[in-house]
Amino acid sequence: MDSAVALACARAEGLACHALSFDYGQRHRMELEAARRVAGALGAASHATAQIDLRAIGGSALTGEAEVPKDRGRIGEGIPVTYVPARNTVFLSFALALAEVRGAEDIFIGVNALDYSGYPDCRPEYIAAFERMARLATKAGVEGRPLSIRTPLIALPKAGIIRKGLELGVDFGLTHSCYDPLAPGRPCGRCDACLLRRRGFAEAGAKDPLPYPG
Amino acid sequence: MDSAVALACARAEGLACHALSFDYGQRHRMELEAARRVAGALGAASHATAQIDLRAIGGSALTGEAEVPKDRGRIGEGIPVTYVPARNTVFLSFALALAEVRGAEDIFIGVNALDYSGYPDCRPEYIAAFERMARLATKAGVEGRPLSIRTPLIALPKAGIIRKGLELGVDFGLTHSCYDPLAPGRPCGRCDACLLRRRGFAEAGAKDPLPYPG
Repeated sequence: MDSAVALACARAEGLACHALSFDYGQRHRMELEAARRVAGALGAASHATAQIDLRAIGGSALTGEAEVPKDRGRIGEGIPVTYVPARNTVFLSFALALAEVRGAEDIFIGVNALDYSGYPDCRPEYIAAFERMARLATKAGVEGRPLSIRTPLIALPKAGIIRKGLELGVDFGLTHSCYDPLAPGRPCGRCDACLLRRRGFAEAGAKDPLPYPG
Repeated sequence: MDSAVALACARAEGLACHALSFDYGQRHRMELEAARRVAGALGAASHATAQIDLRAIGGSALTGEAEVPKDRGRIGEGIPVTYVPARNTVFLSFALALAEVRGAEDIFIGVNALDYSGYPDCRPEYIAAFERMARLATKAGVEGRPLSIRTPLIALPKAGIIRKGLELGVDFGLTHSCYDPLAPGRPCGRCDACLLRRRGFAEAGAKDPLPYPG
């Protein structure tokens, strides 16, 4: 959902967008098919999925065998078990490689500092440090061409992200959030991702088009 | 060769070392088998190879179909065609994930700023920026545990790297450098990597154990 709204923000600036998804052995791999549909619906110039071998490194409920927590009352306290080590750093590194090959000046990422305060790699100071590193890492940076990491959602609450997406014409029926779906297109409704999403739609006063159980 | 000497430096400090190699579709994939042998010979605690899907992103003679340049008179002028976009950033990102899972405090990388001056991601200022970003990216950093990117070879000429390796007992007969080998264990002798290696051994006054043609 956040990636979809971030892409819509980039398209609203009139940018040609090369979308990049990651297959990192996540349980919720159906998000990759959703990403392809969303990229098409929003008019991305291309969409690629990079295979990422994080499973060899281990360390998270999202890629390992641990249970995904359900019905948690206190999302956002401490670093959750679903934290994937260095995930955004790995994702942004691949995006940096693609940006260099495509000659892109902006890398958009849908990170959000508020709802997921437990993830260190969603904070503005992390993003600023990555951007500084990226400018030193690449031919583009060495040659003085601009390179920015853009985070249009970083300061928004989930309800604000949903409102912005609706303004920009995002079809949230195409998106996928659940960490542990019951079946293709059938979110569990109870994992952290589902709880945050449902609370966001409620706060935005909008209807979530996805079919939750019960 | 540089990775082998960097590993020997870490082992010389008495550290338990978890070696990480990358299969990124490089032409010279036999370096992965060499890495496994070197890690064993130097007593690494583990050795893993992560598959990296850089081929999907493209942009380099090392992963694409362009000719590897041979017999170049002026290695190190400008950014070479064998540059892989954001390669060290991608590699260090995976190493950061592994360090976080293993609880490691140091990431060693055999980058060298002198011989390969054309690669922006081999410079000390790049490494310093990555380290700063890494400390903001991870649980370890947030919780105040140390995390350092260690580059014991960064200021050494190739001959100095070879001398240090010989002092530390590295068997260079196990290493692989060639970008475009004739056959397994048969370096071409003429690509940039071979030329730099051979020049390094000559300047160090040592014999390279590898069998070059002619």
